[in-house]
Amino acid sequence: MEALTASPINGLREALSGIAMAEDPATLRLKSRDFFWFSPILKPLLEGREAALVAMPRTRDEVIRIAAAAARHRVPVTVRGGGTGNYGQAVPLEGGLLLDLSGLDRVVWARPGVGRFEAGARLLEIDRALRDQPEASGRWELRFHPSTRKQATIGGFIAGGAAGCGSCTWGQISDPGAVLAVQVVTLEETPRVLELRGSDVLKVLHAYGVNGIITEIEVPLAPWQPWAERILAFPTLGDAARFGWALAAAEGIAKKEIGIFDRRIPPMLKRVAPLMPGGQAMAIVMVSEPQAAALADCAADHGGSVVYERDPEEAEGAAFDGKGTMPPLYEYTWNHTTLHALKVESAITYLQVRFPEGGELALVEAMEKRFGDELLLHLEFQRRFGRVFVSSLPLLRFRSPERLGEIVAEVETMGGAVSNPHTYVLDNAGWKRTDAPQARFKALADPHGLMNPGKLLEQTR
Amino acid sequence: MEALTASPINGLREALSGIAMAEDPATLRLKSRDFFWFSPILKPLLEGREAALVAMPRTRDEVIRIAAAAARHRVPVTVRGGGTGNYGQAVPLEGGLLLDLSGLDRVVWARPGVGRFEAGARLLEIDRALRDQPEASGRWELRFHPSTRKQATIGGFIAGGAAGCGSCTWGQISDPGAVLAVQVVTLEETPRVLELRGSDVLKVLHAYGVNGIITEIEVPLAPWQPWAERILAFPTLGDAARFGWALAAAEGIAKKEIGIFDRRIPPMLKRVAPLMPGGQAMAIVMVSEPQAAALADCAADHGGSVVYERDPEEAEGAAFDGKGTMPPLYEYTWNHTTLHALKVESAITYLQVRFPEGGELALVEAMEKRFGDELLLHLEFQRRFGRVFVSSLPLLRFRSPERLGEIVAEVETMGGAVSNPHTYVLDNAGWKRTDAPQARFKALADPHGLMNPGKLLEQTR
Repeated sequence: MEALTASPINGLREALSGIAMAEDPATLRLKSRDFFWFSPILKPLLEGREAALVAMPRTRDEVIRIAAAAARHRVPVTVRGGGTGNYGQAVPLEGGLLLDLSGLDRVVWARPGVGRFEAGARLLEIDRALRDQPEASGRWELRFHPSTRKQATIGGFIAGGAAGCGSCTWGQISDPGAVLAVQVVTLEETPRVLELRGSDVLKVLHAYGVNGIITEIEVPLAPWQPWAERILAFPTLGDAARFGWALAAAEGIAKKEIGIFDRRIPPMLKRVAPLMPGGQAMAIVMVSEPQAAALADCAADHGGSVVYERDPEEAEGAAFDGKGTMPPLYEYTWNHTTLHALKVESAITYLQVRFPEGGELALVEAMEKRFGDELLLHLEFQRRFGRVFVSSLPLLRFRSPERLGEIVAEVETMGGAVSNPHTYVLDNAGWKRTDAPQARFKALADPHGLMNPGKLLEQTR
Repeated sequence: MEALTASPINGLREALSGIAMAEDPATLRLKSRDFFWFSPILKPLLEGREAALVAMPRTRDEVIRIAAAAARHRVPVTVRGGGTGNYGQAVPLEGGLLLDLSGLDRVVWARPGVGRFEAGARLLEIDRALRDQPEASGRWELRFHPSTRKQATIGGFIAGGAAGCGSCTWGQISDPGAVLAVQVVTLEETPRVLELRGSDVLKVLHAYGVNGIITEIEVPLAPWQPWAERILAFPTLGDAARFGWALAAAEGIAKKEIGIFDRRIPPMLKRVAPLMPGGQAMAIVMVSEPQAAALADCAADHGGSVVYERDPEEAEGAAFDGKGTMPPLYEYTWNHTTLHALKVESAITYLQVRFPEGGELALVEAMEKRFGDELLLHLEFQRRFGRVFVSSLPLLRFRSPERLGEIVAEVETMGGAVSNPHTYVLDNAGWKRTDAPQARFKALADPHGLMNPGKLLEQTR
């Protein structure tokens, strides 16, 4: 008994009495996973890696108690929100404690153009709260959300996400002004509560929770617009891509989503498939309802036509209340496209490709020609750095890690910039930004090197 | 007496009985003018050109009666709103009737993201009405307005304007989606009421009212944001311009105005002058209040610092109610800069220069160096065509028409695109767009060639 109590986990469990915990096998398995299985390379590496204990705090004080106890008992801590990441962000490589923050889900406050939220608040629930308690100044919403709006938490999005629906207007979360402040609890015997503001927030952005426990986030809010949904069909992928470009470039048309899909993708999207004429490329778009006619004109300029439309009320009913048979259309965009395709064809995985400035559309057509049925292009149009920014989550029919490597190399030779989604190592995904010393902040916020161990190459433990 | 009645004007006057009219010399002079006197070239050409009669209808039915009578009596008709144009748009070159539409000033309706307004509604009054009667969905406002927000009407802006405060986010009025519909009354014995929608609106945009009487306008609305005002000082014009670029390119910072001014301009702006450190270049900016810190960070990156700040409540008090001693800061931007400078130095006029894609900031510095005290750069940053778009209203110390011509030629040789603001001839300002047959529409809407005669080179009368 004494030996058991002396083990770090037992000591931790005892120290946390009164805080919701779980350690049944089903919960341990469930909470130790994210969507890493999108990658056939990550799958064998991360499958079966599990925490020994899950803690589910409801308040920051409980988080502080947990941080103190984990530091004292030297127990590794992996933080998770909705577990919708694709790179093993939430997988505890060295076991220990899984800290599920989804119980910290309050709106701290919201004012015109800005709101502060606990890290575990789900993105859809934040937007619901903002909808139900409108300011005198109007209705506000998050600027962007991934396609996992329903499942993802704002803390998880900040710690591992980048862009999403809304990025065709507002850019990405790492852009200046996109995140105003982040509150972080350090993993120390006497945890500190730090407030990072301005460019300091970059220290913990996309850091997978290796350098502090994010507890609150302050972000600018977007004024709501009556978002209408449209699906459009185009003769070719080139036509659809040129339309995507034109719409992204049209300052006069208020919009929230521009996804473009190879003709071979719609048949893999169950409820979308029957709407699309065979052999046509597709666009999924959200625009402000009064501008739907301008959108249709823009599509017609590129040979496109509207094949499905839903007004803002119905689109919101689908998003917030699951009304109707058609899910919100954003659940067919970004990495939900991959999810749907995986369901019908298990060999599917994906890449992340950014297109070179100036040569975007030429590369789209060159890639379409080059890779045949092995790579199916799925573009997401964004605005970044003051220009139209074309990113892509192409579906890839996986054959072997070697072949995947060859394709990545070839895409890069052709001019694309590939962010490898088949690694759980942060260093391979932009760690150590020169403009925000993430690594130095880690030494300060996690002096014992206990946070999400294994995600950094040079981790000093 | 019979001879008098038989004259076209007398016949018209009689036909319009019951409609408000004026023909006293003071009113005739006042209503026959706009801001053409900004141009020392236009001034002698347009000074003294006056209408014989002013009509001030209050309803569309009155407009129709006027149009019918003017057609029947073959009286030239020049339409005006606030008379804030700079190119003689509202000056009746051949006398006749001056049709002042400022009495048609109703909000026809407003819904989330869209509103319809009578042509004579002033831009500030539209925004006031939208503020005072918020939708359940929130508060909306016009996407953009010139610096003459208080005086200009929406019809006049559509018929002769282009851009303004808001263009750093929303582009210009001729961009796709920026104007949804325009209602036009034709000048015929039996006038028709036409509704132009989609790209058809281009037929009457920036047409100075030569092809129909614009009576109603439907535009998308922007969701309001809590706009804070800032004045910033920079070591050099190049620093200020690079800041302007960075801010225009920052999707993450919600903004409404980015004006950049040569160090020699602030001393000419009465209430601004005491705020500015001597010899520094200036920026006037409006951003969403919660993003003011991100703005200040962006300025600091370019050596800039905030020298004046006003919160949204006070800024609105200045704009809507004239509160405080400092006018709304947008009244120092766009062509108000020229107005203020003209008041202190009568030889000042201006140019309109667009900067070439890719070479914007190099040309700014080259022009600064080249023209010395003769040309003082004033830049306005916009977003257009999916990119940062730099336009300029440089102040010019006028010497002679020949020297002005030389400067224009030299700016164009250096790579700038000059839109000549020293002509009242529409053909010189983009008339006959290939994408919208303005000239053909004129034949249809003004078969007798009575509308704003003299503004077209090839006018067939």
